[in-house]
Amino acid sequence: MSLETMQDLLIHQLRDIYSAEQMLTKALPKLKDKASTDELAAAFGDHLAETQNQVARLDQVFELLGERSSGVKCRAMEGLIAEADELLDEDGNEAVIDAGIIAAAQRVEHYEISAYGSAKAFATLLGRSDIVKLLNESQQEETAADKKLSLIATAEVNARAAGTDPSMAAKAM
Amino acid sequence: MSLETMQDLLIHQLRDIYSAEQMLTKALPKLKDKASTDELAAAFGDHLAETQNQVARLDQVFELLGERSSGVKCRAMEGLIAEADELLDEDGNEAVIDAGIIAAAQRVEHYEISAYGSAKAFATLLGRSDIVKLLNESQQEETAADKKLSLIATAEVNARAAGTDPSMAAKAM
Repeated sequence: MSLETMQDLLIHQLRDIYSAEQMLTKALPKLKDKASTDELAAAFGDHLAETQNQVARLDQVFELLGERSSGVKCRAMEGLIAEADELLDEDGNEAVIDAGIIAAAQRVEHYEISAYGSAKAFATLLGRSDIVKLLNESQQEETAADKKLSLIATAEVNARAAGTDPSMAAKAM
Repeated sequence: MSLETMQDLLIHQLRDIYSAEQMLTKALPKLKDKASTDELAAAFGDHLAETQNQVARLDQVFELLGERSSGVKCRAMEGLIAEADELLDEDGNEAVIDAGIIAAAQRVEHYEISAYGSAKAFATLLGRSDIVKLLNESQQEETAADKKLSLIATAEVNARAAGTDPSMAAKAM
């Protein structure tokens, strides 16, 4: 695909995000299964439902552009998910692994926040407020998911994981 | 590596970031060479110098932890760079490609902002304010680099790229 116009670039970005979101719908159930608390598992479950809705929203965007819904394999998301998968196979303390999975998931959210941000900027320049609106809804969900994971980490997981550190356990006594 | 303690997880994160920053020192010169304006090339050049300094800062962190400086191949950064490389090989309008390269570089910055954020949270829990301080300096540089790229995009590149769109060109007449 040659990038001659801003619309070419917008479509290029959308195909990347479409592929990324589709990969995520397959990865999130595995994160949910590995989570050691109900709260974290529920957060991944909720975000799976959001992600499926984000794919549907991208279908709408492609329709508005008169383009076929399709993805071009997102190499970055493939790597982000491979990193999360490595953690799923890791041995160790379950709270420490939860903290690691949250960190991996937050990298994913940041990737998507940035990707939607760029796509929104390009759609804005093209005067497509209808598309900007849809992309903005998904970006806001990604931002909220990132904040929710931070909250779960700081409120519960990290402190439980820090209890694994000998110096911290001593302080807690 | 088994993740038994929070310190194990912090070291795991640092090895990931170390690998990511080292890969970036090799990728940024290619982005600089492809940039079609002096301003964008200079931004990538400046960030290369910062990235080299961030590697040195991580060497300090490993020393403070009594650990050998080493990376574990960061699969996510490998994917992020592969995505940027695809753009470098793309044919098309140079302003559109600049806008695409900026979008790819901002995804990289967001990855790093998130990675340093998690590492900072873990170091904070371990009471290592010496390490938090160093990680925070790098995270602030990543945040500033992201903002600078947004500024270059909105001030110049995107508008030039949007001139490639038939409907936009008509409005500019």
